[in-house]
Formats: sequence, C-alpha cells, structure tokens
Amino acid sequence: MVRIADQKKDFPQWYLDVIEQADLSDYSSVKGCIIFKPYGYAIWEAIQRDLDDRIKKLGVQNAYFPLFIPESIIAKEKDHIEGFAPECAVVTHGGGKELSEKLYIRPTSETIIYSTFAKWIHSHRDLPLKINQWANIVRWEMRTRPFLRTMEFLWQEGHTAHSSKEDADNMAESVLKMYSDFDKETLAIPVLTGKKPEHEKFAGALYTLCTEALAKDGKVIQAGTSHNLGQGFSEAYEVSYLDKDEKRQMPWMTSWGVSTRLIGTLIVVHGDEKGLRLPPRIAPIQVVIVPIFKTDEERKKVLEIANSLNDSLEGIRVNIDDREGKSPGYKFNEWEVKGVPVRIEIGPKDLENKQAIIVRRDNGEKDAVPLDSINTDSMSALLDLIQKSLFEQAESFLQSNTRTTKSYEEFKKIIDNEGGFVWMPWDGESVTAEKIQSETKASIRLIDDSSGETDPYSEKPAKHMALYAKAY
Amino acid sequence: MVRIADQKKDFPQWYLDVIEQADLSDYSSVKGCIIFKPYGYAIWEAIQRDLDDRIKKLGVQNAYFPLFIPESIIAKEKDHIEGFAPECAVVTHGGGKELSEKLYIRPTSETIIYSTFAKWIHSHRDLPLKINQWANIVRWEMRTRPFLRTMEFLWQEGHTAHSSKEDADNMAESVLKMYSDFDKETLAIPVLTGKKPEHEKFAGALYTLCTEALAKDGKVIQAGTSHNLGQGFSEAYEVSYLDKDEKRQMPWMTSWGVSTRLIGTLIVVHGDEKGLRLPPRIAPIQVVIVPIFKTDEERKKVLEIANSLNDSLEGIRVNIDDREGKSPGYKFNEWEVKGVPVRIEIGPKDLENKQAIIVRRDNGEKDAVPLDSINTDSMSALLDLIQKSLFEQAESFLQSNTRTTKSYEEFKKIIDNEGGFVWMPWDGESVTAEKIQSETKASIRLIDDSSGETDPYSEKPAKHMALYAKAY
Repeated sequence: MVRIADQKKDFPQWYLDVIEQADLSDYSSVKGCIIFKPYGYAIWEAIQRDLDDRIKKLGVQNAYFPLFIPESIIAKEKDHIEGFAPECAVVTHGGGKELSEKLYIRPTSETIIYSTFAKWIHSHRDLPLKINQWANIVRWEMRTRPFLRTMEFLWQEGHTAHSSKEDADNMAESVLKMYSDFDKETLAIPVLTGKKPEHEKFAGALYTLCTEALAKDGKVIQAGTSHNLGQGFSEAYEVSYLDKDEKRQMPWMTSWGVSTRLIGTLIVVHGDEKGLRLPPRIAPIQVVIVPIFKTDEERKKVLEIANSLNDSLEGIRVNIDDREGKSPGYKFNEWEVKGVPVRIEIGPKDLENKQAIIVRRDNGEKDAVPLDSINTDSMSALLDLIQKSLFEQAESFLQSNTRTTKSYEEFKKIIDNEGGFVWMPWDGESVTAEKIQSETKASIRLIDDSSGETDPYSEKPAKHMALYAKAY
Repeated sequence: MVRIADQKKDFPQWYLDVIEQADLSDYSSVKGCIIFKPYGYAIWEAIQRDLDDRIKKLGVQNAYFPLFIPESIIAKEKDHIEGFAPECAVVTHGGGKELSEKLYIRPTSETIIYSTFAKWIHSHRDLPLKINQWANIVRWEMRTRPFLRTMEFLWQEGHTAHSSKEDADNMAESVLKMYSDFDKETLAIPVLTGKKPEHEKFAGALYTLCTEALAKDGKVIQAGTSHNLGQGFSEAYEVSYLDKDEKRQMPWMTSWGVSTRLIGTLIVVHGDEKGLRLPPRIAPIQVVIVPIFKTDEERKKVLEIANSLNDSLEGIRVNIDDREGKSPGYKFNEWEVKGVPVRIEIGPKDLENKQAIIVRRDNGEKDAVPLDSINTDSMSALLDLIQKSLFEQAESFLQSNTRTTKSYEEFKKIIDNEGGFVWMPWDGESVTAEKIQSETKASIRLIDDSSGETDPYSEKPAKHMALYAKAY
C-alpha cells in the first residue's frame, strides 16, 4: 500500500516518500549519487526532448567535450577555480599508474570548452559560436537530496562566444526567456526571473540571470541560470579574433544550464497529499486505463474495450494496467502517487451504459463520459486543460506568496510564518545580505534595478529592490 | 581547400584527414580524449534516436546509474576486476579531502548495476528485468584513434536479468539481431555475427556474441557485443529470487553495448577517396543545395528557387549553402568530404531550363532533373536508393573479401596481401590462436560450431571453423 508522509506536517519526508513510492530514484552504493530509475529517467528524457528543440531554435549546436579537465587548464581562471576547486572530484591514478597531472572531473565545462574555443575562433566570421552539451557533472556535496542536490547530476550546459557585450547580453537574455517559457509551457511552473546580486553570481561571471520557482513549503528553488561571462574567460584562455578592421579583439562569452534538479522542482511545485502530479507535456504516461472486473468473462469484455480505447487514443501515451492480483483501489493509489494526469476506469456497469469514468489527477474531478466521445482530440483537449490548470494553481500560489515590505520586523514575520518570496529594499552591500541570511535563513534570490527606498536593516539608501526567500 | 591523403596508399592518414576535414572531432587537452564537434555529434544523435527505439521495442527501459563505482563493489567479481582494473581511472580525492575508499570511473557498469539489482529482484515476478543506459565510459588507453579507440567514449549498455539460461540466451541473441539489423538498415553496414572464442570473451561472461564489420583497408572492426553473463554476477552480488515454488534461485544476466566507435566504423566502411559517405538514415544533412551565380540578380533568383525547393522537401534534412566568398567548387568539395548523400546544384542556366542538377554522393552520378519533379516523395525514393546502394557496395566488398582455407601457407598469404576475413579450421586452443596472431597479427573474430576438419597450424583436430582477421 502506498504510504506517504503528510505534506503539510513534514514536507522533507513527504518529498522522500513520493520519490520512493513513485519509483523515481534509488540510493546507490556511492554516497551522494542516486540511481535514476526508469520512471524518473523517462521524465528527464521528456524534458530533454522538449528543451533540446528550444535550444536548437536559438541556433545552438550540440557537441560533447571531455569529462576530465587537466589541473593546468581548470586553474587558469582564478575566480572560477577558487569557486569550484573545493567541490571537485580528482583523478590521480589511471591505467594502474599515478598521473603526472591531476585530472578534475568537470564541475561545469567553461574551462575545457573555452580553452578549445581558442583553437576554433580566429575571425569575426567565426562568431557567434553557440555550443551546447548534455552531460554528467560531479560536485562534491555532503548534504544531498535526490534530484535537488546530488554529487553527480545530469544537465545541459550552453557555451557561446560573441563579438560584443551587447550580443552576449542578448544571448543571456534569450536563454533566460527560453528557460522561463519552457518552465511555463512544458513544466507548468511559473518562475520569477532576474539578476543575481554580485555575491551570488557564478564564479567568474560578469553577471548571472536566473529563474526561481516556489515550492509548496514556501521555499524557493533555483531552476536555471544564464551567465554573461564577460571577457574573463577569453583573457584566461587566450581566445581572440580579428574584427572587420583586422584588429585583434576578445570575444564575450555566455554560459547557461538546467539540470535534473528540474525533476525535484516538478515534485515540490506540483506534488500534493496524494503524491506527484505530472504536467501532461512531460508525463511518461499521460493516460492510464484501469479495467475493473470480477469474473473472467467480465475481464475479457472490459479489456476488449480498454484495448479499443487505446487504439482510438493514437499519439497519446496510454498504459493499460491489466496486472492481475492487484485491486483497482491499489492501482488507483499507485497511479495517483505517480502523478499520471488522467485515469480512465472501466467496469461492467460502465460497459452496460457505454461509458467510462474519467478522473483528473490535477483536481480529482470524476466524470462519466460516453465511450464513443473518447478520442485523440477530446483527450488532447483534456490534457491541455490539465496542463493549464496545474500552471494556474502554481501561479496563484506563487502570487499569493510574493509579498513586499519596507519593515524588517514584518520581513522576519513573513519569512518565519508564511515563507515564500519577499521584496524588500536593499543597500546593495553583501554584508547586509549575509546578516539578514544568518538571522532569517532567507537569501537574496534576485534583484531589481528600481529603487529610491531605504534598506530597513542597515538604514542606508537602497540600491535595489531585492527578492528574498529561504532556498533549497 | 580540402586535402586528404590517398585512401589506398595511407589509410590511417586518410582516416585522420577525413575526420579533420569533415569537422567530426578535435583533439582535446586531455590525452586520449576527443571533442565531438557538432557534425560528428549530430551523427551520434541520429544513431541514438534510431537505436533507442529498437532497444525499447525489446521491452527495455532506460535508466541511469552512477559514474563512480566504489572499489569494494567493483572488486567483487574476480574475473571482471582482473580484466578491467588495469584500464580504470581512479578518483582518490573529493571535496578537498583524500577519500577513505577509492572510486573507479565506470569502464562498464555490470558491477554497479547488478549490485543494485540485488535490491530490485526478490520474486520471479520481478523478472525479466531489462535496463539500458546511455552513458560516458572511461578506459585508460595509450594508443588512441578518434572514435575507434578513445579514453572516454559514449555508449549504451543494456543489462538484463532472467529466470533461466534459455531466456538469457534468447535475450543475448535478440540483441545481436537488433544490432545487425540496425547496422544493416540504418548504417548500411553488413556485419558477420557469431560467438567469440573463450579467450576473447568479456571478462566475467559465459560467452560473448559480436558483430564484426570490414573496413576498406581489409581490417576488421568489432561493432557491437552481446554477452550472456551466466550466474557469475548474481553470485558475486548476491542477486536471488523466489521462484513459483518458493525456492531461492539465481537469475541469469546479459549485457550488451555499442559505442561512438560506430562513427569510426561508418568512416572506414563507407569512406572513399573524396571523404565520408553517410547513409541517408543517419546523415545530419541529407540534401545540400548549392546555388550558383555571378551577379546579384542571379543570386536573388537562384536563392528564391533554392528556398522554394527546400519548402517542397518537407521532412527531409536540407541545408542551403548560401555562404558568400566561397566558390561552388569549394562547396562541392566540402559537402563531399562531409558525406552528404545528395547535392542539388542550381545555376542561372538551370533556371532557364527549369531544372536542377542532382549529384549522388554514393556513386558520383549527375542528373539534370525538372524542378517540378523534385519533392519529398521523389527525394525520399532517391535517398532510399542511396541507402541501399551503400549497403550493396559494402556487402559486395565484404563477400569478395571473405575467404576460406585449410592451408596455413595460403592463410598467411591472404592476410598479408588481400586482408579481409579468413575462415580456417581451429583446434580450439587459445595457444594456437595466440601463435597465429603473433605470426600474422590476425586474431579470431568469431567461431562457428560446424567442423570435422584439421587445424592446419597445430595439425590437431579442429573444434571450430574460426574467422580470422587483422583487427582495429
């Protein structure tokens, strides 16, 4: 029987229970690394297919760079190595011998990719150069949580080079828009987007843009980042080109990525007391048909109808759950915890009435529907409705949990009680942000340029409105 | 200008030149690791898409297991660790500290996967369990060659568990058939299939099946392997289940894989003196349109027709090469070295005659074709023809280079002069095979059961007919 903790009382346990019961991942014998089980991996495959199309539409081509980064290469960009070295796994032995140079396992691939761009970029005609790779990444983590924070994870990382800051700005912005469109349209997740404060930007970047989603427990989760890297990596890796006037120039880089963390984001944004709720666009199974019967004769008749329903739902990902030895109730629970958007129940009585019961996972609504009205068109329309409904529920939750205050006392109360996002004027000093974080656990997720207020913590003039939240 | 070595005089240099000129891969700053450039990676993506569908049709589900294997896990299957330990890269430090247990980077994932199967398999109802993963692999190699032998490569590895030897036999055979169908239908590569001799089988397997292709230089290349692993891994990793009679049994495993080596195989099987020849099914660009013009007005007209041709070729992967500053001849050469199956040339004279010139990459044939007869149907038919023609050329080469002999003198002459495959009776002793290999460099690629002959080398009774060839 499916048993998951109460979402309202113990969200962290609820999260782990849902993952286990929905069969998304398993622990491995390597501390901090998870196994992506077939159902969890199928969600990632659906994410990949959709996002890969969007990435290619931005004129980006896929490629693949080595897993290993020699120490001499990774160490060239000082800010970068300082940020990442403590998180790296290091290979010291290979082929039975100690290596003369250590190999770092990529914690991200700016260094290996831009050192290669130096060979590929010579002329302004070589720009823009837009590359993406789907790859595994390793960052040493002590406190891990499946999907949300693991030592090894899967991601895509885009890396581009441009001839001007403006072009790089535009690229970073286009990617941010691509991510937020993808989050909205495919994952049914509303996100807030904007710029990270200096002290939260990517190691070695000029600035970092991000998408931030709100989990059901009021905590925020960073879903994607897009960096304008400026010319720092060009300088460190000696990437240069001759412009139209035959003058040597350094290109401007961007990098950006989203990871299997998105699976965790789906769970914490859409999940409810019964388990996962998957948006139809990325649900490995969109419709499950559960036949209900007692006798063998009933079984035969009901399965016949189930199969013909399946035939009339071409193009939709349908599963007929004809397992024996499991009760309908058991099956209902299982598909609910797995978040399948639509369940169709067919029993002997339904056959008499030439109908089926359709149950929506997003809101639990049950409807008796004539069998002959169930087809690809009607089901696609229902799936679109569910996709939209999940987004609207999440959007309404996000809006009602985004607040603005000019009082630090009120700020603390909101963070402590309701959680969610809080806009508050900020003096732009990292020390202020750090003090607020140590007092409340809320950090600045992104900043807005508009201001003219006073930072209620430091009582200095505010440089930005800052969006605070407790984060995953 | 495109310059590649003479294929007949210096095949190894020809191979490297084709890879460079076709822009398939680049060397990296990590010895033995290559960079998959966009055009080379696009071939891999096409291979993945096609093969992934075939794998799923066998009832196999994708999943993902950790990159790292703890030393205590990998060491449990003795034959396996003995075979692979000398090839492994080893992580000794992580998060700035020396690790208490070394982590091996997967050289293949039997050990980490079957140690997990122990948690997943309890009852006969859990069998068969069929898992596949697409992953990167590291094997320490000193003598590397792009795609054919690299330290890091990409592959798929299938891992299945069954309740009987017969079921595992059937799985291993089904996979072998899937691979040879894929080689034939998608890659247009004919392969010989069969069983490896004992001394060439996978470390820890009961037996190994394989597909072997023949390169243009008369050397053989192993394209895929499928192993029946017996119960050795079940024993080592304590995987067991209760059968229908509530008796504890050990499952039988299979594992199987193909890798980015297939890209190298495509090059050495189909390549000619002009470069790559890609089978249409996996060609990233199936049709390239090269507009020919002198004046701006001609350019405008010709491009207009090129664009409308592109519109009428929906569903086909078309590229219009409208680059300025490159001559048509330069473009012809470039697309030939890149192996694009069909080139369409359109110049002002063609416009007058309402025709285009269609050039086939597989045989160089040129045809003037009425513009209004070029559409998705006619082009699909031509691409099918080219796919078939490439297979037939390779098949005819394979057949005329597969010989049988009962004389060791003749054997040596064939291996030295013509190369290719040679069937010869074998006494079944690895020492005989080793002596023959040290004298001729030819190894046994696979064996056939039928015999009754005498091994001409040892003059002992033959246990098998053995297929010898010099291998990559």
